[in-house]
Amino acid sequence: MHVVVNAATSADGKLSSRRREQIAISGEEDFARVDRLRADSDAVVVGVGTVVADDPRLTVKDESLCEDRLERGAPEQPARVVIDSKGRTPTDAAVLSDAAPTYVCLSEAAPVDTRMDLADHAELVTAGDDRVDLLRAFAALQEQGLERIMVEGGGELIFSLFEVGLVDELRLFVGSTIIGGRDAPTLADGTGFVEEFPLLELERVERLDDGALLQWTVKS
Amino acid sequence: MHVVVNAATSADGKLSSRRREQIAISGEEDFARVDRLRADSDAVVVGVGTVVADDPRLTVKDESLCEDRLERGAPEQPARVVIDSKGRTPTDAAVLSDAAPTYVCLSEAAPVDTRMDLADHAELVTAGDDRVDLLRAFAALQEQGLERIMVEGGGELIFSLFEVGLVDELRLFVGSTIIGGRDAPTLADGTGFVEEFPLLELERVERLDDGALLQWTVKS
Repeated sequence: MHVVVNAATSADGKLSSRRREQIAISGEEDFARVDRLRADSDAVVVGVGTVVADDPRLTVKDESLCEDRLERGAPEQPARVVIDSKGRTPTDAAVLSDAAPTYVCLSEAAPVDTRMDLADHAELVTAGDDRVDLLRAFAALQEQGLERIMVEGGGELIFSLFEVGLVDELRLFVGSTIIGGRDAPTLADGTGFVEEFPLLELERVERLDDGALLQWTVKS
Repeated sequence: MHVVVNAATSADGKLSSRRREQIAISGEEDFARVDRLRADSDAVVVGVGTVVADDPRLTVKDESLCEDRLERGAPEQPARVVIDSKGRTPTDAAVLSDAAPTYVCLSEAAPVDTRMDLADHAELVTAGDDRVDLLRAFAALQEQGLERIMVEGGGELIFSLFEVGLVDELRLFVGSTIIGGRDAPTLADGTGFVEEFPLLELERVERLDDGALLQWTVKS
């Protein structure tokens, strides 16, 4: 399994404003790059906070990329995965559409009624007591043949993935704006590291749109 | 007056951990770059939070840079400025040493006793009722001949400076680590922008040490 975290932040590391409204940080070149990365992935993963805030579809937009997938024997669209400890994904969420298969990873804390509702729209993976056990959930995804994983946020999920050592690569578009706000979501939220910090190796630095694309691999 | 904000953050936009402990984000090349930028400045500005957390000296370290300053008729060291609404700067802070002149910018909310103590160690500038009025304080600094200003943090001050439109340039070293933490200080904290966001123009993107140096000018 290979896990790539992809995100766009403002120059001050924010994914969106304190109101959690989506802000156009990147431009067309970056959208095309993200679409290609999705098309190269077996699954696109988000946390439920992102589903609730942005209601993303998480599908590949460029039809020729979908055709390329079919030609190489892959499904037309990558699978979608929501990490959702308590079962908060709305049943009318765009991520549960028929456009692609969806997995919702829950913990035992998700109410039974919620699970039954979600089971009509997605494959359910249950791992962990109060929070999704990410190592077990990702192992279950791997058993489903999902090897190349792209993670699109938010900051709580990204921090948790770094915490358990599941991240192999980080690709970050740094936009040319300041969002600010001590309560605005950042690339990696959670409790934060205080003594040992994940070390990255910078592989690529380049200008893209009116911002910068930085690509790191995670040192093991 | 020309105001340059300079900072080093982790890949996720943090200045330090949630414990506010200093973390080595950059390396020797970046230290040398920061020292040159200080030497090119008339004043180096920080918020009192940075003084309390890190107790920085804010002096130019490279003696040849100090000699260059003397040769061009400038003081050996740039002035140091603390933005300190309530007068929380400890009287034994390194920034109040004799190594360079220091200005402490206070609001009317700073207690009289505190002001009297600080007046023994620094030039005092009072502007604003509860918080330092940055426009008035920076105008007072300009009247003292301080034209080239470098701001070294922290995130509260940097946000406030963007808010009042005082920033001309942002120079950011992005390090190859993840700090994480929803309560860790970021490059721009404060209340955050929610509708209109400062727009930057990316002037430079390059690899430096094991991270990236990004330089922007602020669009007016």
